[in-house]
Amino acid sequence: MVQTGADFVLLIACEDRKGIVAAVANSIASQDCNIIESSQYGDASTGRFFMRVAISCPEDMTSERFTSAFLPVATAFRLDWRIYDLRKKLRAMIMVSQGGHCLNDLLYRTSTKRLPMEVTSIVSNHMTWKRRADHEGINFHHLPITPENKLEQEAKLLAMVEEQQVDLIILARYMQVLSDQLCRKLDGRVINIHHSFLPGFKGAKPYHRAYERGVKMVGATAHYVTPDLDEGPIITQDVSVVDHADTVEDLIAQGQDTESRVLARAVKLHLEHRVMLNGNRTIVFK
Amino acid sequence: MVQTGADFVLLIACEDRKGIVAAVANSIASQDCNIIESSQYGDASTGRFFMRVAISCPEDMTSERFTSAFLPVATAFRLDWRIYDLRKKLRAMIMVSQGGHCLNDLLYRTSTKRLPMEVTSIVSNHMTWKRRADHEGINFHHLPITPENKLEQEAKLLAMVEEQQVDLIILARYMQVLSDQLCRKLDGRVINIHHSFLPGFKGAKPYHRAYERGVKMVGATAHYVTPDLDEGPIITQDVSVVDHADTVEDLIAQGQDTESRVLARAVKLHLEHRVMLNGNRTIVFK
Amino acid sequence: MVQTGADFVLLIACEDRKGIVAAVANSIASQDCNIIESSQYGDASTGRFFMRVAISCPEDMTSERFTSAFLPVATAFRLDWRIYDLRKKLRAMIMVSQGGHCLNDLLYRTSTKRLPMEVTSIVSNHMTWKRRADHEGINFHHLPITPENKLEQEAKLLAMVEEQQVDLIILARYMQVLSDQLCRKLDGRVINIHHSFLPGFKGAKPYHRAYERGVKMVGATAHYVTPDLDEGPIITQDVSVVDHADTVEDLIAQGQDTESRVLARAVKLHLEHRVMLNGNRTIVFK
Amino acid sequence: MVQTGADFVLLIACEDRKGIVAAVANSIASQDCNIIESSQYGDASTGRFFMRVAISCPEDMTSERFTSAFLPVATAFRLDWRIYDLRKKLRAMIMVSQGGHCLNDLLYRTSTKRLPMEVTSIVSNHMTWKRRADHEGINFHHLPITPENKLEQEAKLLAMVEEQQVDLIILARYMQVLSDQLCRKLDGRVINIHHSFLPGFKGAKPYHRAYERGVKMVGATAHYVTPDLDEGPIITQDVSVVDHADTVEDLIAQGQDTESRVLARAVKLHLEHRVMLNGNRTIVFK
Repeated sequence: MVQTGADFVLLIACEDRKGIVAAVANSIASQDCNIIESSQYGDASTGRFFMRVAISCPEDMTSERFTSAFLPVATAFRLDWRIYDLRKKLRAMIMVSQGGHCLNDLLYRTSTKRLPMEVTSIVSNHMTWKRRADHEGINFHHLPITPENKLEQEAKLLAMVEEQQVDLIILARYMQVLSDQLCRKLDGRVINIHHSFLPGFKGAKPYHRAYERGVKMVGATAHYVTPDLDEGPIITQDVSVVDHADTVEDLIAQGQDTESRVLARAVKLHLEHRVMLNGNRTIVFK
Repeated sequence: MVQTGADFVLLIACEDRKGIVAAVANSIASQDCNIIESSQYGDASTGRFFMRVAISCPEDMTSERFTSAFLPVATAFRLDWRIYDLRKKLRAMIMVSQGGHCLNDLLYRTSTKRLPMEVTSIVSNHMTWKRRADHEGINFHHLPITPENKLEQEAKLLAMVEEQQVDLIILARYMQVLSDQLCRKLDGRVINIHHSFLPGFKGAKPYHRAYERGVKMVGATAHYVTPDLDEGPIITQDVSVVDHADTVEDLIAQGQDTESRVLARAVKLHLEHRVMLNGNRTIVFK
Repeated sequence: MVQTGADFVLLIACEDRKGIVAAVANSIASQDCNIIESSQYGDASTGRFFMRVAISCPEDMTSERFTSAFLPVATAFRLDWRIYDLRKKLRAMIMVSQGGHCLNDLLYRTSTKRLPMEVTSIVSNHMTWKRRADHEGINFHHLPITPENKLEQEAKLLAMVEEQQVDLIILARYMQVLSDQLCRKLDGRVINIHHSFLPGFKGAKPYHRAYERGVKMVGATAHYVTPDLDEGPIITQDVSVVDHADTVEDLIAQGQDTESRVLARAVKLHLEHRVMLNGNRTIVFK
Repeated sequence: MVQTGADFVLLIACEDRKGIVAAVANSIASQDCNIIESSQYGDASTGRFFMRVAISCPEDMTSERFTSAFLPVATAFRLDWRIYDLRKKLRAMIMVSQGGHCLNDLLYRTSTKRLPMEVTSIVSNHMTWKRRADHEGINFHHLPITPENKLEQEAKLLAMVEEQQVDLIILARYMQVLSDQLCRKLDGRVINIHHSFLPGFKGAKPYHRAYERGVKMVGATAHYVTPDLDEGPIITQDVSVVDHADTVEDLIAQGQDTESRVLARAVKLHLEHRVMLNGNRTIVFK
């Protein structure tokens, strides 16, 4: 949950050593800011230290001012760090194909402020959701993909991402695989929902394969997109119970509820700056 | 749940066609028996029909008498079928290595009649649990396994299974792989608990691999044992939530709770004759 | 799940005695129909027997024809019974106030055929959801309620229910209490979603009271509406985990997900004729 | 999870103000200790601030040395605080009546070090579990309770608590209500498992009442004991799904699994000093 009163979030990663918390806390206190929420994690296997601090600040505080005051600490402890101003909503592009359950869910949550983001546009390789986009007053871009035009369309997509100043791309059941090149360019900024409990059924048609294997639960996994298909860092996962009488169609129907829920949760965690990357694993500060 | 008053369970599999339920119900009624619980499933993809009927009977009814009266229906519809007398508890052998969480759980449930089975013996490749077996008044057999003596020990095991008239072998965290030959001989009578959400992490050290992949849930799977390691028909599964701060040790500790729960559930379903095999999938009539 | 091929659902309640299943199965077989799915329950405490049978029929079968052929069995066993033609969708009216999370969810599921119902209209005491109703092409009726006009507006509502031939009224976060008189008239046809894990926090502001009590989970309950507020027969329930840092606002936000899920599940069970009343308890044949 | 390397846990509660975190972190760093894990919570409604810090220390650190160095900060910020040495296991007394599912579970977890506590004795108003206590090598005290001897027996109990230097009393399905006087004397040191999802069914026979109400889930609640029966601060809760066919006996059987799991989780949280009291609510730092 976002603590009432938090104005900024500070994310820090560095080599673990004594005194980091004290140094960070001192710097924050010296700027007349208050720590609202603080989480940390030391990874014993790599010796890396991770920290998230939510702070409330005097009204005239800016990211720039905070940065200049914080720099000495950052330098002394060789921090990888970033400060986020919570008063500026992240700008998100939603990509979708024909199945709209995740899209419908994200739009509702955005409209009721449950997801603190601004949807810059909806991009799709189909026209299915144009009418709904219009109803919501959101720009809709139709980018049909064929083997021939794929790179060209990805170039257009990238141009839109830049033009719309997109912070986050949400693949809300977008059924096209992004090229390696695009994945690398957008690294850490693309969240996908995979319709299985990874690493269970990587690749295509996971519900069909779950049915064939006779599993008793099906799941969904939200993860950052990397060039390795379905191998990106996992943000969150969930499952639901199925039984022998469920057809593949039933698994798909039931799985969609889990997909919507898992994707919404992952997006919320990202928007609140609660997710940090630690190699191919994520740290999620709830 | 076992319905109060059920004396027998009838399991049926056959080619699906009209009139089966009526014929079975008529035969049961004509024997002055009452249907307490009935479940059925028609597999559209294979055309097979499966049915489980729990019945209460006059006091002097026996499996033999029921069988002779039921034979005409069984022949007419070419049923694969079996009748189980619930008044005779199944005889179960528990195999365990050093980790005793599943064993401890199974023993407690058996002692309080939650699991309607008779434990004929505990078999282990270690001595760890001998003292507890003694305390519970259950025979303990020590069968240490080396690459050299494996087949010999399996022969001994098989002899014990026959001598003790074992209906069900429960691998309660038994860390030795059974030979293909033994798997085939005991087909459908061995339940194993695998410490991952299959097919996620087949094979050894699943918690280590779950940690490395950075999954956000870990699971356990109870399945019948077949020569294909971790590929046998799944009976039931469950998961629990983990996070970035959980070490491999934490995953193991937390996973043990899930393992105990999942194995106990699978054993109970088997003891109540609620599980039927449909190729490599199970039908579970709850 | 609705089994492919089921054309009719037969619901039966009667005094428990031998031979019912056989008689019912015989009657179905004699009409050249096939049992696709069958569930039954005998309530030991009341001696009542309940049964649900899904059947596939020859193409020219009608409810009327089935009824006349089935009448002898129904009379002989004194059955309370009803036959439902699955080819005719139930007609549902959705009532909502300002919070639209359940409405949004129900509309999406209906549009993708996950919920086999026809929405006859949306009725609200506010104008909030008129625009969305228009977008979906569904009639919207504004029925503002004051202490003065309540009975008058309920009369209008009842007229609409009759005129639109409504089978089911879904209170999708409709914040007005229906009068006793109306509850009685619509008995068994109104499903409400209560935003707590009943009987935990009956009445108003359950999330506020959950917060004050410091509970670690919050829930939602879908139930049929009766004159006794929040005491009607429960169809389904679910919960989600919360912690000390969650404000009342957080509980409300998180609870909404549970509410949507629970209401959709209850409506689906009702539409598939899986719910039967047994005094103030429900029997739910999954 | 207990972070490897944590030697002490520091718990702090105070009026919220700027600079607390910095002051605490500075004091810890100045003693050459390292912060392993840190959690905090500011309660906006009361203005209270709560903090838990797990620290690793030089080998010769003691609670006394830490205390004297920390006193200036504690005084300046008027802290309610306490330091716990993780190298000293808490001493726990387990009280039980006849149902042993929680006891069996706690004993197993203790024996495998999953619960870092020392069981000083098992106290019961029945003899049922004496033999098992003997097997585990734990002292067993038989304290039968009648209306006449209740206060006298409680005096004995209190004497044992003192003599055995008990830090925590676990009511593991102990079916006697403690007197108000005793509750007050042991305030914050007694954890009870209540067999319902509080506040759903307070008082006696909750499973019977859950059955009568027709709920679709049953739960369990672990809470600190206060003179107000079943009104003490909740530590953790969980539920499991039931259906119409489950008898009261089934609810009880299934509920026992939830009870064991919930109680073990609550005890673990307490042993790791993760629970703080905030009026009648708890703060649980996971």
